[in-house]
Amino acid sequence: MIAVYPGSFDPITNGHLDIIERVSKFADKLVVAVLNNSSKVPMFSVEERLAMLEETCAGMANIEFAVFSGLLVDFAKSISANAIIRGLRAVTDFEYEFQMALTNRSLCEDIETLFISTSTQHLYLSSSIVKEVAMLGGNVKPMVPNIVEGKLVKKIGKL
Amino acid sequence: MIAVYPGSFDPITNGHLDIIERVSKFADKLVVAVLNNSSKVPMFSVEERLAMLEETCAGMANIEFAVFSGLLVDFAKSISANAIIRGLRAVTDFEYEFQMALTNRSLCEDIETLFISTSTQHLYLSSSIVKEVAMLGGNVKPMVPNIVEGKLVKKIGKL
Amino acid sequence: MIAVYPGSFDPITNGHLDIIERVSKFADKLVVAVLNNSSKVPMFSVEERLAMLEETCAGMANIEFAVFSGLLVDFAKSISANAIIRGLRAVTDFEYEFQMALTNRSLCEDIETLFISTSTQHLYLSSSIVKEVAMLGGNVKPMVPNIVEGKLVKKIGKL
Amino acid sequence: MIAVYPGSFDPITNGHLDIIERVSKFADKLVVAVLNNSSKVPMFSVEERLAMLEETCAGMANIEFAVFSGLLVDFAKSISANAIIRGLRAVTDFEYEFQMALTNRSLCEDIETLFISTSTQHLYLSSSIVKEVAMLGGNVKPMVPNIVEGKLVKKIGKL
Amino acid sequence: MIAVYPGSFDPITNGHLDIIERVSKFADKLVVAVLNNSSKVPMFSVEERLAMLEETCAGMANIEFAVFSGLLVDFAKSISANAIIRGLRAVTDFEYEFQMALTNRSLCEDIETLFISTSTQHLYLSSSIVKEVAMLGGNVKPMVPNIVEGKLVKKIGKL
Amino acid sequence: MIAVYPGSFDPITNGHLDIIERVSKFADKLVVAVLNNSSKVPMFSVEERLAMLEETCAGMANIEFAVFSGLLVDFAKSISANAIIRGLRAVTDFEYEFQMALTNRSLCEDIETLFISTSTQHLYLSSSIVKEVAMLGGNVKPMVPNIVEGKLVKKIGKL
Repeated sequence: MIAVYPGSFDPITNGHLDIIERVSKFADKLVVAVLNNSSKVPMFSVEERLAMLEETCAGMANIEFAVFSGLLVDFAKSISANAIIRGLRAVTDFEYEFQMALTNRSLCEDIETLFISTSTQHLYLSSSIVKEVAMLGGNVKPMVPNIVEGKLVKKIGKL
Repeated sequence: MIAVYPGSFDPITNGHLDIIERVSKFADKLVVAVLNNSSKVPMFSVEERLAMLEETCAGMANIEFAVFSGLLVDFAKSISANAIIRGLRAVTDFEYEFQMALTNRSLCEDIETLFISTSTQHLYLSSSIVKEVAMLGGNVKPMVPNIVEGKLVKKIGKL
Repeated sequence: MIAVYPGSFDPITNGHLDIIERVSKFADKLVVAVLNNSSKVPMFSVEERLAMLEETCAGMANIEFAVFSGLLVDFAKSISANAIIRGLRAVTDFEYEFQMALTNRSLCEDIETLFISTSTQHLYLSSSIVKEVAMLGGNVKPMVPNIVEGKLVKKIGKL
Repeated sequence: MIAVYPGSFDPITNGHLDIIERVSKFADKLVVAVLNNSSKVPMFSVEERLAMLEETCAGMANIEFAVFSGLLVDFAKSISANAIIRGLRAVTDFEYEFQMALTNRSLCEDIETLFISTSTQHLYLSSSIVKEVAMLGGNVKPMVPNIVEGKLVKKIGKL
Repeated sequence: MIAVYPGSFDPITNGHLDIIERVSKFADKLVVAVLNNSSKVPMFSVEERLAMLEETCAGMANIEFAVFSGLLVDFAKSISANAIIRGLRAVTDFEYEFQMALTNRSLCEDIETLFISTSTQHLYLSSSIVKEVAMLGGNVKPMVPNIVEGKLVKKIGKL
Repeated sequence: MIAVYPGSFDPITNGHLDIIERVSKFADKLVVAVLNNSSKVPMFSVEERLAMLEETCAGMANIEFAVFSGLLVDFAKSISANAIIRGLRAVTDFEYEFQMALTNRSLCEDIETLFISTSTQHLYLSSSIVKEVAMLGGNVKPMVPNIVEGKLVKKIGKL
């Protein structure tokens, strides 16, 4: 199975990292794909997000990184992926996820969306929550990889 | 029963069309009502949306079209409607729908909100998904009436 | 529109009564249909449930009562109904309701399921809750029509 | 128990008032805390919101009012609160609430989030709905305290 | 605040224990109340369940234990409680909980239901799951207090 | 990836078949595992259920069949599976599924639960609905493989 794990990763959290580690164990190849979404203003540039992912996952087997824009299924086809991975949290907008899965299948019958849950200790984590806590001066150490915490503090100091 | 089916219809999808056909079978009259919402920037103008609805539903019995702004219950009263129709999808924000139904009843006791589900093949459809897919170059042919597909392609080419 | 409102009505609650009154305003005819379900042991017999419904709704226009067993859509077709009414509460098992609506449509394309909400003061009511409260000695006066309260107390005294 | 009830209160609704009355009965002290959120443009200023709260709750025991910005748990700690109160409505975004509760606990283990439901007649109310109805010319008398209704009408007249 | 935490506790899990510890910090008194429900066949007798609770919570302050049958609000009134505590898990049947809260309020306006979440590591735990896993020979050590594990193994050996 | 797809399959529906076909495309091996649950009385014996599965899936690649009892994760380990497959329907009891996934992970960290959705036309299907419709004399032809329909009719004739 070649799997693609798409997301904004703005920035990567411990919840994302947990999903990546889990999927890398059963997939033959996992492509972590950073969405380059022109209609949203991210905190970190695509290059910064990619660099944090690569540094965080350094040494993990079967993993590649990529940037994509346009339709996710088109990107997935271009790398011969047959599965899209989506993480589930206690706070997942499951109805939206379900809609995207059904839409993506209507666009491409051969690529399945697989939902997988994070560990319970990460169930509440999202990049938005991490950024909100960091901007209000809270401690995000338990929420993100070490390298990300430093970059968050720096980035917010410049805002 | 005089029913009003309100919405932005920006643009009409096969899911909307499915609801219109179903309701027209049991309602004495169905008024499809395009919301003229000054606080959102639509892709299509009210006139364009109305024209697509009328062309798509040409020849269907018991159906009228209208544009409204202001409170939905005020519009419903002005056309002597006794029911508001809302479509349910697998991905309906049901809690929001429930809130609107209870609010509308608190504003006018005599008009009921009736929820009806689309066909299973349209359960994932929404105007937002259609526009997102079209803007990313995906095929929306199975999602909208033929006439709408052409107008979507044209409109996006001009953006 | 000829509507059928199916249920166990074991016994009728103020929430059921609220739905019946609301639907009777926009339907040409409403058939309240008591399910004769051989696989469940009800508190009240079909005859008792029917009698309580008829007494509670005495004098309401456009309403008939019936008992049915077997497939709901077969019963609905036999009385030329084109709509099935289901009440929504804050505590509706909406996913089950959605499944039944889609199943019924797959069995008969011409009969639509319409969901309608009860008044906010009845949102928590169900026949099960009423029976549970009554059996534990609680006051069910605000939950059921007067005539039902008396019969509940009698029935429980005999258990 | 010292409880903090945080919110935008833009403006206070009858649902908020109901929660405040209920909590004041079992808490030793309840601090109603107005969020001063620089990233949202409110309809009423922090001062106006605070004034409406104080006028609405005049004479109620055990209640104080405050304005806060920054992390809610930091504010809660600063007033020695051991509980955060959140109201539940039929239309609560419960998953978001759950995420915030888990996040706040990860930031401060000693402050619990307690969820409490409003009365059924207020289950559909939110400040957003109230503002939307008021701006479309609907009657918000049953939705907000009298003093708020007057200020809403004035404010909207000036927009 | 005098709080009552009702349940079957058949048997107590680490999730229950977590709730008890949290509530004991902000309540003036917490009464853990074992439901003596004649219509369900429990694995452990009321006496066994009470003994496990008392042994597990030995030494915790502000906590009392009781057995009740009949209406929860009647029991709560008899001990002058002004709050009912319900635990929330990722897998809570929240709609049922909401219904019970609204029903209990309709039976007694003066007692509030407060919902509180367990720690994330216990979010999946319930007595049913624990019993199911134990009966299939799985390891329940991380799910229940030590004393309960021993009793579960013994009890299942006798079945 | 070696995947196990557990279930009662009492009987196999077109929804199950759809999941089996989808997973067989990306898994190296898929083991369809019939649960031998001594506490439920099935309509079809384990042998009958297995035979229907084998006949329905005859000729499909990478698929094996098995019967299991006891803990699912123990069975999964015994066949070296690294993933458990669960189908999602519009009417999935998602909270229960989530609880089982978290419980199974707490029992065995190395086996992941993957959720995958059925096709939209099967979203309402479950074995229970199929049996209920069949017993009430409804047409289940569009719901199950041909071979199952015949066996259902026979089995019900004998009841």
